[in-house]
Amino acid sequence: MTDPIYLDHNATTPVAPEVFAAMRPWLELHFGNPSSSHVHGRRAAQAVQQARQQVAGLIGAQPQEIVFTGCATEANNLALLGVARALPPGRRHLVISSVEHPAVAAPAAVLREQGWELSVVPVDEHGRVSAVAVAQALRPDTALVSVMHANNEVGSLQPIEEIAAWTRPRGVLLHSDAAQSVGKLALQVDALGVDLLTLAGHKFSAPKGIGALYVRSGTAIRCVLHGADQEQGLRPGTENVALIVALGAAAELAARELPALSDRLRRLRDRLHERLAAAVPGLLLNGHPQQRLPNTLHVSFPGVSGRGLLAAADTVAASLGSACHSEQDAVSGVLAAMGVGAARASAAVRLSVGRATLEDEVDRAAAALVAAWQSLQLVPLN
Amino acid sequence: MTDPIYLDHNATTPVAPEVFAAMRPWLELHFGNPSSSHVHGRRAAQAVQQARQQVAGLIGAQPQEIVFTGCATEANNLALLGVARALPPGRRHLVISSVEHPAVAAPAAVLREQGWELSVVPVDEHGRVSAVAVAQALRPDTALVSVMHANNEVGSLQPIEEIAAWTRPRGVLLHSDAAQSVGKLALQVDALGVDLLTLAGHKFSAPKGIGALYVRSGTAIRCVLHGADQEQGLRPGTENVALIVALGAAAELAARELPALSDRLRRLRDRLHERLAAAVPGLLLNGHPQQRLPNTLHVSFPGVSGRGLLAAADTVAASLGSACHSEQDAVSGVLAAMGVGAARASAAVRLSVGRATLEDEVDRAAAALVAAWQSLQLVPLN
Repeated sequence: MTDPIYLDHNATTPVAPEVFAAMRPWLELHFGNPSSSHVHGRRAAQAVQQARQQVAGLIGAQPQEIVFTGCATEANNLALLGVARALPPGRRHLVISSVEHPAVAAPAAVLREQGWELSVVPVDEHGRVSAVAVAQALRPDTALVSVMHANNEVGSLQPIEEIAAWTRPRGVLLHSDAAQSVGKLALQVDALGVDLLTLAGHKFSAPKGIGALYVRSGTAIRCVLHGADQEQGLRPGTENVALIVALGAAAELAARELPALSDRLRRLRDRLHERLAAAVPGLLLNGHPQQRLPNTLHVSFPGVSGRGLLAAADTVAASLGSACHSEQDAVSGVLAAMGVGAARASAAVRLSVGRATLEDEVDRAAAALVAAWQSLQLVPLN
Repeated sequence: MTDPIYLDHNATTPVAPEVFAAMRPWLELHFGNPSSSHVHGRRAAQAVQQARQQVAGLIGAQPQEIVFTGCATEANNLALLGVARALPPGRRHLVISSVEHPAVAAPAAVLREQGWELSVVPVDEHGRVSAVAVAQALRPDTALVSVMHANNEVGSLQPIEEIAAWTRPRGVLLHSDAAQSVGKLALQVDALGVDLLTLAGHKFSAPKGIGALYVRSGTAIRCVLHGADQEQGLRPGTENVALIVALGAAAELAARELPALSDRLRRLRDRLHERLAAAVPGLLLNGHPQQRLPNTLHVSFPGVSGRGLLAAADTVAASLGSACHSEQDAVSGVLAAMGVGAARASAAVRLSVGRATLEDEVDRAAAALVAAWQSLQLVPLN
């Protein structure tokens, strides 16, 4: 049996062939430790530095503002806990949204255990926070605001620029977890107004196991893991050279392909949406209709469970929500925060297209989902 | 110019061809997120599980006792800080040796800042701690002893089994950073008597960017990074599938080749030592003559600086000490802890052979080092 059509790019993406080609020599030929002063080491250090430039280039940052980490979760931890460790004692208030990924919500909860005060700003029915609500949560002792750029489940984009207009004049640091948006949308750190930004390699064609944190020059931050002096003392441990090279190559690829790639993803996603909506009366879109990741379609199919639908549509690989929670049957916290009722929430599936998705795959997936939905409508007569 | 002969395997090792072959499909073909419930995800989860079995098999552990991390530094942080987070308040005393890697010494210093008491047990002139000295440092409130298995600079092996004989009956946890020994020496966690053991993939033919922590079943430990529930809640973040597969393959390779590989490394190392000693009167070995990593030769060349010697022997890639400190001119803390004087310390180089080292390379490297040393003896007449 051939593999199902992959419509789960928000969970993870295939490695782009160009990215594999770029990293391969760093697995087969070159192997130095970037901290070594001989030629093997210097060559590795140069490769890491080139990747740092490529990643910085994608988001409009300076190379020295990029810290490579083992994953986006680690980058989020470094942002929240690392900033907290560097702050003067007087500032112990943190603001996050109600739809953050556990990689932000969990370190925020740890800070609360350590005596910080935590404000959680709610989202509207489209999964968006209001910048004014964030502004109203600010206090004289607010140290940091952390609001994701795009939600991992419904794809809604947050008004980061508007939030920055409130935080920046008040000297409040602004972090955004952009794990889902980098590589899908063109974005620049200065235009967003962020001080810290999280990237996840495996969400845009690099392998799993590499992330990065953008840290604006001059931002007070300390390490969270402790050891030697790699990554300007912010992330100890021998550098993951091959995957750092891969992240650099993926960043360069994205920089070259954006914003055209966004348009292509949006056309594929909208084609999928149109085909489903045409055949499924009452199909409901979750997330913001416009202010949304171009690749993400989170929809509720009337009268069925999302789990049952995906089981019946076994030629399609998609998910109920975040991959990080696939084993849990509970309603998604994101949908609950949006006020989506239990029936609509349990009827939802997340369909996310990617760089390698073909129009034909979209058409076949739509047909399979429609057929599965129709088959589940055939209630036994007795 | 061809690359210099690589005698710096304690800094990092080339990826074994078998390891690259094992991981390659996970970069080119398979890409699922192990948390996804569709076939792409399940396939990735199975690969991670197989790697867990392979790593466990190498060290005589159970698969569920292996936690994959982004590097050995992270594993060491998880061992020290994770155990600290799980302990009852009454136990706030930690014992380490004076020659630990910064990845252990730095988190230990963080615990001291947090109110822990820290005892640092000295080493003898061979770089070894005495188990009795560790035992004498134990107190009723001692929670954890962390002593490396093999020193990264001079290669001296620590008496972990003897230390365990003191800690275990007292309910004190024992951690060992085995980053340098796993894959070079056959070892089993039960024979060592450790509760926690750190592995570094890139020190035994896997790529940089993957480590693991062995955690004996029943050991109280909490996560250090916070997020979703991967790795039994001990290490959040999407799994680094390709490098986890690589670590598993490297572990299986090591399990197959050990202990014969140790013997081969020892023969190569001793051949190098003999050639140097025969041509360089007064060559001094640093580290224990017998209780030492089989691949490591740390020697002081009389009358020269190690830095000058390596600069003159430019067909050899070796190091002055730990790669993590290659830019620092200060005397190695390890040599200082051993009581090695400044002149002998500055005259030292670390030569470390590896799985791919050839006898001919050893001979050519020895000749180059001898010629470099002789050239530096030619003091100008005026």
